[in-house]
Amino acid sequence: MSESQIAVALLHHPILNRRGETSTTAITSIDVHDFARSCAFYDVSPVYLVHPADGMHSLIHDMTDYYLNGKGGERNPERKEVLKAIRCVKSLDQIIEAEPYQLWYTSATPPGEMCIEASELKHINGKHLIVFGTGWGLDEENMPNANGWLSPIKGIGKVRHLSVRAALAIYLDRLGI
Amino acid sequence: MSESQIAVALLHHPILNRRGETSTTAITSIDVHDFARSCAFYDVSPVYLVHPADGMHSLIHDMTDYYLNGKGGERNPERKEVLKAIRCVKSLDQIIEAEPYQLWYTSATPPGEMCIEASELKHINGKHLIVFGTGWGLDEENMPNANGWLSPIKGIGKVRHLSVRAALAIYLDRLGI
Repeated sequence: MSESQIAVALLHHPILNRRGETSTTAITSIDVHDFARSCAFYDVSPVYLVHPADGMHSLIHDMTDYYLNGKGGERNPERKEVLKAIRCVKSLDQIIEAEPYQLWYTSATPPGEMCIEASELKHINGKHLIVFGTGWGLDEENMPNANGWLSPIKGIGKVRHLSVRAALAIYLDRLGI
Repeated sequence: MSESQIAVALLHHPILNRRGETSTTAITSIDVHDFARSCAFYDVSPVYLVHPADGMHSLIHDMTDYYLNGKGGERNPERKEVLKAIRCVKSLDQIIEAEPYQLWYTSATPPGEMCIEASELKHINGKHLIVFGTGWGLDEENMPNANGWLSPIKGIGKVRHLSVRAALAIYLDRLGI
Protein backbone atom coordinates (compact mmCIF):
# COMPACT_ATOMS: atom_id res chain seq x y z
CA MET A 1 0.00 0.00 0.00
CA SER A 2 1.53 3.26 -1.11
CA GLU A 3 1.58 6.26 1.17
CA SER A 4 1.64 8.64 -1.74
CA GLN A 5 -0.76 11.60 -1.70
CA ILE A 6 -1.21 13.78 -4.74
CA ALA A 7 -2.47 17.36 -5.11
CA VAL A 8 -2.50 19.76 -8.03
CA ALA A 9 -1.72 23.47 -8.47
CA LEU A 10 -2.57 25.73 -11.39
CA LEU A 11 -0.15 28.62 -11.49
CA HIS A 12 -1.06 32.10 -12.76
CA HIS A 13 2.11 33.74 -11.46
CA PRO A 14 5.03 33.63 -12.08
CA ILE A 15 4.44 32.42 -15.62
CA LEU A 16 5.91 33.43 -18.97
CA ASN A 17 4.16 35.58 -21.50
CA ARG A 18 4.58 35.23 -25.28
CA ARG A 19 7.79 37.26 -25.13
CA GLY A 20 9.29 35.03 -22.41
CA GLU A 21 8.87 37.66 -19.69
CA THR A 22 7.70 37.04 -16.13
CA SER A 23 3.96 37.60 -16.12
CA THR A 24 0.56 36.93 -14.55
CA THR A 25 -2.55 35.48 -16.17
CA ALA A 26 -6.20 35.66 -15.18
CA ILE A 27 -7.92 32.65 -13.66
CA THR A 28 -10.56 31.38 -16.10
CA SER A 29 -13.78 29.81 -14.91
CA ILE A 30 -13.49 26.85 -17.27
CA ASP A 31 -10.10 25.93 -15.80
CA VAL A 32 -11.59 26.03 -12.30
CA HIS A 33 -14.46 23.74 -13.23
CA ASP A 34 -12.41 21.33 -15.36
CA PHE A 35 -9.56 21.10 -12.85
CA ALA A 36 -12.00 20.52 -9.98
CA ARG A 37 -13.95 17.88 -11.90
CA SER A 38 -11.02 15.95 -13.32
CA CYS A 39 -9.28 15.89 -9.93
CA ALA A 40 -12.46 14.75 -8.17
CA PHE A 41 -12.81 11.98 -10.74
CA TYR A 42 -9.37 10.66 -9.81
CA ASP A 43 -9.66 11.52 -6.11
CA VAL A 44 -6.78 14.00 -6.27
CA SER A 45 -6.99 17.00 -3.92
CA PRO A 46 -6.70 19.82 -3.04
CA VAL A 47 -6.71 21.85 -6.23
CA TYR A 48 -4.71 25.02 -5.56
CA LEU A 49 -5.32 28.07 -7.72
CA VAL A 50 -2.26 30.26 -7.40
CA HIS A 51 -2.78 33.96 -8.06
CA PRO A 52 -1.32 36.99 -6.26
CA ALA A 53 -4.34 39.30 -6.62
CA ASP A 54 -7.04 39.57 -3.94
CA GLY A 55 -9.58 40.59 -6.57
CA MET A 56 -9.08 37.35 -8.45
CA HIS A 57 -9.59 35.38 -5.24
CA SER A 58 -12.85 37.27 -4.64
CA LEU A 59 -14.05 36.47 -8.13
CA ILE A 60 -13.33 32.74 -7.64
CA HIS A 61 -14.99 32.88 -4.23
CA ASP A 62 -18.15 34.39 -5.73
CA MET A 63 -18.19 31.82 -8.50
CA THR A 64 -17.70 28.79 -6.26
CA ASP A 65 -19.94 30.15 -3.49
CA TYR A 66 -22.92 29.91 -5.83
CA TYR A 67 -22.38 26.15 -5.81
CA LEU A 68 -20.91 25.61 -2.34
CA ASN A 69 -23.52 27.61 -0.43
CA GLY A 70 -26.08 28.86 -2.93
CA LYS A 71 -28.70 27.81 -5.42
CA GLY A 72 -26.19 26.22 -7.79
CA GLY A 73 -25.40 23.47 -5.33
CA GLU A 74 -29.07 22.60 -4.88
CA ARG A 75 -29.52 22.15 -8.59
CA ASN A 76 -26.13 20.51 -9.12
CA PRO A 77 -24.97 18.71 -5.95
CA GLU A 78 -22.14 16.96 -7.78
CA ARG A 79 -20.59 20.28 -8.75
CA LYS A 80 -20.90 21.41 -5.15
CA GLU A 81 -18.95 18.34 -4.03
CA VAL A 82 -16.32 18.83 -6.72
CA LEU A 83 -15.66 22.49 -5.97
CA LYS A 84 -14.93 21.81 -2.29
CA ALA A 85 -11.37 20.90 -3.33
CA ILE A 86 -10.57 24.41 -4.63
CA ARG A 87 -8.07 26.48 -2.59
CA CYS A 88 -7.08 30.00 -3.62
CA VAL A 89 -3.54 30.93 -2.56
CA LYS A 90 -1.22 33.83 -3.27
CA SER A 91 1.93 31.90 -4.14
CA LEU A 92 3.51 28.50 -4.46
CA ASP A 93 5.63 29.37 -1.41
CA GLN A 94 2.45 29.79 0.61
CA ILE A 95 1.48 26.20 -0.21
CA ILE A 96 4.81 24.60 0.63
CA GLU A 97 5.22 26.59 3.83
CA ALA A 98 1.97 25.00 5.06
CA GLU A 99 2.40 21.49 3.66
CA PRO A 100 5.58 19.45 3.00
CA TYR A 101 4.91 18.87 -0.69
CA GLN A 102 7.43 17.46 -3.11
CA LEU A 103 7.12 19.66 -6.19
CA TRP A 104 6.69 18.17 -9.67
CA TYR A 105 6.55 20.66 -12.51
CA THR A 106 5.00 20.11 -15.93
CA SER A 107 5.84 21.51 -19.33
CA ALA A 108 5.52 20.56 -22.99
CA THR A 109 9.30 21.08 -23.14
CA PRO A 110 10.77 20.37 -19.68
CA PRO A 111 14.47 20.75 -19.00
CA GLY A 112 16.07 17.39 -19.80
CA GLU A 113 17.19 16.48 -16.32
CA MET A 114 15.07 14.88 -13.64
CA CYS A 115 12.02 13.84 -15.65
CA ILE A 116 9.96 11.00 -14.25
CA GLU A 117 6.86 9.27 -15.57
CA ALA A 118 3.63 10.33 -13.89
CA SER A 119 2.99 6.67 -13.05
CA GLU A 120 6.04 6.64 -10.75
CA LEU A 121 4.58 9.17 -8.31
CA LYS A 122 2.36 6.66 -6.58
CA HIS A 123 5.46 4.69 -5.60
CA ILE A 124 7.15 7.68 -3.92
CA ASN A 125 6.08 8.14 -0.33
CA GLY A 126 4.86 11.50 0.90
CA LYS A 127 2.88 14.41 -0.40
CA HIS A 128 3.24 15.44 -4.02
CA LEU A 129 2.15 18.62 -5.76
CA ILE A 130 1.89 18.56 -9.54
CA VAL A 131 2.22 22.12 -10.83
CA PHE A 132 0.66 23.27 -14.11
CA GLY A 133 1.34 26.57 -15.80
CA THR A 134 -0.85 28.93 -17.78
CA GLY A 135 0.16 31.51 -20.39
CA TRP A 136 3.39 30.44 -22.07
CA GLY A 137 4.38 28.12 -19.22
CA LEU A 138 6.04 28.06 -15.82
CA ASP A 139 8.61 30.77 -15.09
CA GLU A 140 10.81 28.25 -13.30
CA GLU A 141 13.66 30.71 -12.68
CA ASN A 142 11.38 32.56 -10.28
CA MET A 143 9.93 29.46 -8.65
CA PRO A 144 11.14 27.19 -5.84
CA ASN A 145 13.37 24.33 -6.98
CA ALA A 146 11.36 21.35 -8.16
CA ASN A 147 11.96 17.79 -7.03
CA GLY A 148 11.60 17.00 -10.70
CA TRP A 149 9.49 17.32 -13.83
CA LEU A 150 6.90 14.97 -15.20
CA SER A 151 7.78 13.50 -18.58
CA PRO A 152 6.06 15.55 -21.25
CA ILE A 153 3.02 14.41 -23.17
CA LYS A 154 4.28 13.86 -26.69
CA GLY A 155 2.05 14.71 -29.62
CA ILE A 156 2.59 13.82 -33.22
CA GLY A 157 0.52 16.57 -34.68
CA LYS A 158 0.46 20.18 -35.62
CA VAL A 159 0.69 21.99 -32.29
CA ARG A 160 3.36 22.12 -29.66
CA HIS A 161 1.11 21.79 -26.65
CA LEU A 162 -2.33 20.86 -25.37
CA SER A 163 -4.67 23.07 -23.38
CA VAL A 164 -3.78 22.91 -19.70
CA ARG A 165 -7.15 21.26 -19.09
CA ALA A 166 -6.32 18.45 -21.51
CA ALA A 167 -2.80 18.06 -20.11
CA LEU A 168 -4.16 17.75 -16.58
CA ALA A 169 -6.63 15.05 -17.63
CA ILE A 170 -3.93 13.00 -19.36
CA TYR A 171 -1.46 13.28 -16.47
CA LEU A 172 -4.16 12.24 -13.97
CA ASP A 173 -4.99 9.24 -16.14
CA ARG A 174 -1.31 8.36 -16.37
CA LEU A 175 -0.90 8.44 -12.59
CA GLY A 176 -2.51 5.02 -12.64
CA ILE A 177 -3.99 5.43 -9.19
CA MET B 1 2.14 -0.10 -40.92
CA SER B 2 -1.47 0.31 -39.94
CA GLU B 3 -4.01 1.76 -42.34
CA SER B 4 -6.16 3.03 -39.52
CA GLN B 5 -7.47 6.60 -39.77
CA ILE B 6 -9.20 8.24 -36.87
CA ALA B 7 -11.64 11.16 -36.68
CA VAL B 8 -13.78 12.55 -33.87
CA ALA B 9 -17.37 13.78 -33.60
CA LEU B 10 -18.95 15.79 -30.79
CA LEU B 11 -22.69 15.18 -30.77
CA HIS B 12 -25.24 17.79 -29.68
CA HIS B 13 -28.24 15.83 -30.98
CA PRO B 14 -29.66 13.31 -30.25
CA ILE B 15 -28.40 13.37 -26.69
CA LEU B 16 -30.11 12.75 -23.36
CA ASN B 17 -31.13 15.48 -20.95
CA ARG B 18 -31.13 15.12 -17.17
CA ARG B 19 -34.51 13.36 -17.32
CA GLY B 20 -33.30 10.82 -19.89
CA GLU B 21 -35.27 12.38 -22.73
CA THR B 22 -34.04 12.94 -26.29
CA SER B 23 -32.63 16.42 -26.42
CA THR B 24 -30.30 18.94 -28.06
CA THR B 25 -27.49 20.96 -26.47
CA ALA B 26 -25.75 24.15 -27.56
CA ILE B 27 -22.25 24.02 -28.99
CA THR B 28 -19.88 25.76 -26.57
CA SER B 29 -16.85 27.67 -27.78
CA ILE B 30 -14.52 26.03 -25.25
CA ASP B 31 -15.41 22.58 -26.61
CA VAL B 32 -14.66 23.75 -30.14
CA HIS B 33 -11.23 25.10 -29.16
CA ASP B 34 -10.26 22.20 -26.89
CA PHE B 35 -11.47 19.53 -29.32
CA ALA B 36 -9.65 21.19 -32.21
CA ARG B 37 -6.43 21.64 -30.24
CA SER B 38 -6.30 18.18 -28.65
CA CYS B 39 -7.06 16.49 -31.98
CA ALA B 40 -4.41 18.58 -33.77
CA PHE B 41 -1.90 17.60 -31.08
CA TYR B 42 -2.50 13.92 -31.86
CA ASP B 43 -3.00 14.45 -35.61
CA VAL B 44 -6.59 13.22 -35.48
CA SER B 45 -9.00 14.82 -37.98
CA PRO B 46 -11.55 15.96 -38.98
CA VAL B 47 -13.38 17.15 -35.88
CA TYR B 48 -17.10 17.00 -36.64
CA LEU B 49 -19.48 19.18 -34.65
CA VAL B 50 -22.92 17.65 -34.98
CA HIS B 51 -25.84 20.02 -34.52
CA PRO B 52 -29.15 20.20 -36.40
CA ALA B 53 -29.61 24.00 -36.22
CA ASP B 54 -28.42 26.34 -38.98
CA GLY B 55 -28.05 29.16 -36.47
CA MET B 56 -25.56 27.18 -34.43
CA HIS B 57 -23.53 26.46 -37.55
CA SER B 58 -23.48 30.21 -38.33
CA LEU B 59 -22.26 30.98 -34.85
CA ILE B 60 -19.41 28.46 -35.15
CA HIS B 61 -18.60 29.79 -38.60
CA ASP B 62 -18.33 33.36 -37.25
CA MET B 63 -16.16 32.20 -34.37
CA THR B 64 -13.76 30.14 -36.45
CA ASP B 65 -13.73 32.64 -39.34
CA TYR B 66 -12.05 35.17 -37.06
CA TYR B 67 -9.08 32.80 -36.91
CA LEU B 68 -9.29 31.10 -40.32
CA ASN B 69 -9.64 34.28 -42.39
CA GLY B 70 -9.47 37.23 -40.00
CA LYS B 71 -7.28 39.07 -37.53
CA GLY B 72 -7.25 36.20 -35.02
CA GLY B 73 -5.24 34.00 -37.34
CA GLU B 74 -2.61 36.70 -37.85
CA ARG B 75 -2.08 37.01 -34.13
CA ASN B 76 -2.42 33.30 -33.43
CA PRO B 77 -1.36 31.24 -36.49
CA GLU B 78 -1.37 28.00 -34.50
CA ARG B 79 -5.02 28.40 -33.65
CA LYS B 80 -5.75 29.08 -37.31
CA GLU B 81 -4.06 25.80 -38.24
CA VAL B 82 -5.89 23.91 -35.50
CA LEU B 83 -9.38 25.15 -36.41
CA LYS B 84 -9.05 24.03 -40.02
CA ALA B 85 -10.11 20.55 -38.86
CA ILE B 86 -13.57 21.69 -37.70
CA ARG B 87 -16.58 20.51 -39.76
CA CYS B 88 -20.14 21.49 -38.86
CA VAL B 89 -22.70 18.87 -39.88
CA LYS B 90 -26.41 18.37 -39.25
CA SER B 91 -26.38 14.73 -38.20
CA LEU B 92 -24.26 11.65 -37.69
CA ASP B 93 -26.02 10.13 -40.72
CA GLN B 94 -24.71 12.98 -42.84
CA ILE B 95 -21.15 12.03 -41.88
CA ILE B 96 -21.43 8.32 -42.56
CA GLU B 97 -23.27 8.83 -45.84
CA ALA B 98 -20.23 10.76 -47.08
CA GLU B 99 -17.46 8.65 -45.52
CA PRO B 100 -17.35 4.92 -44.68
CA TYR B 101 -16.58 5.37 -40.99
CA GLN B 102 -16.73 2.61 -38.44
CA LEU B 103 -18.54 4.14 -35.46
CA TRP B 104 -17.13 3.92 -31.93
CA TYR B 105 -19.27 5.41 -29.21
CA THR B 106 -18.11 6.63 -25.81
CA SER B 107 -19.83 6.77 -22.45
CA ALA B 108 -18.95 6.73 -18.77
CA THR B 109 -21.31 3.75 -18.55
CA PRO B 110 -21.37 1.97 -21.92
CA PRO B 111 -23.58 -1.06 -22.52
CA GLY B 112 -21.54 -4.10 -21.54
CA GLU B 113 -21.21 -5.69 -24.94
CA MET B 114 -18.68 -4.80 -27.58
CA CYS B 115 -16.30 -2.61 -25.61
CA ILE B 116 -12.76 -2.34 -26.93
CA GLU B 117 -9.74 -0.49 -25.61
CA ALA B 118 -8.94 2.75 -27.44
CA SER B 119 -5.44 1.39 -28.11
CA GLU B 120 -6.92 -1.34 -30.32
CA LEU B 121 -8.29 1.08 -32.92
CA LYS B 122 -4.95 1.63 -34.60
CA HIS B 123 -4.81 -2.09 -35.40
CA ILE B 124 -8.19 -2.10 -37.15
CA ASN B 125 -7.96 -1.10 -40.80
CA GLY B 126 -10.19 1.58 -42.21
CA LYS B 127 -11.73 4.84 -41.12
CA HIS B 128 -12.89 5.23 -37.55
CA LEU B 129 -15.10 7.87 -35.99
CA ILE B 130 -15.03 8.22 -32.20
CA VAL B 131 -18.29 9.81 -31.06
CA PHE B 132 -18.56 11.88 -27.88
CA GLY B 133 -21.81 13.05 -26.32
CA THR B 134 -22.77 16.23 -24.53
CA GLY B 135 -25.55 16.80 -21.99
CA TRP B 136 -26.33 13.54 -20.20
CA GLY B 137 -24.77 11.39 -22.90
CA LEU B 138 -25.48 9.78 -26.25
CA ASP B 139 -29.10 8.91 -27.04
CA GLU B 140 -28.00 5.66 -28.64
CA GLU B 141 -31.54 4.43 -29.31
CA ASN B 142 -31.91 7.22 -31.84
CA MET B 143 -28.47 6.81 -33.38
CA PRO B 144 -27.07 4.48 -36.05
CA ASN B 145 -25.77 1.16 -34.74
CA ALA B 146 -22.21 1.42 -33.46
CA ASN B 147 -19.44 -0.96 -34.41
CA GLY B 148 -18.66 -0.87 -30.72
CA TRP B 149 -17.94 1.24 -27.65
CA LEU B 150 -14.63 2.35 -26.25
CA SER B 151 -13.90 0.99 -22.77
CA PRO B 152 -14.86 3.63 -20.25
CA ILE B 153 -12.38 5.76 -18.36
CA LYS B 154 -12.66 4.55 -14.80
CA GLY B 155 -12.34 7.02 -11.96
CA ILE B 156 -11.92 6.27 -8.30
CA GLY B 157 -13.28 9.52 -7.03
CA LYS B 158 -16.38 11.46 -6.28
CA VAL B 159 -17.96 12.03 -9.66
CA ARG B 160 -19.35 9.68 -12.23
CA HIS B 161 -17.84 11.32 -15.28
CA LEU B 162 -15.27 13.74 -16.61
CA SER B 163 -15.94 16.79 -18.75
CA VAL B 164 -16.14 15.78 -22.40
CA ARG B 165 -12.97 17.82 -23.03
CA ALA B 166 -11.06 15.77 -20.46
CA ALA B 167 -12.48 12.49 -21.74
CA LEU B 168 -11.43 13.34 -25.28
CA ALA B 169 -7.87 14.15 -24.17
CA ILE B 170 -7.54 10.86 -22.30
CA TYR B 171 -8.95 8.74 -25.13
CA LEU B 172 -6.62 10.41 -27.64
CA ASP B 173 -3.68 9.71 -25.35
CA ARG B 174 -4.79 6.11 -25.00
CA LEU B 175 -4.99 5.62 -28.77
CA GLY B 176 -1.22 5.25 -28.59
CA ILE B 177 -0.74 6.58 -32.10
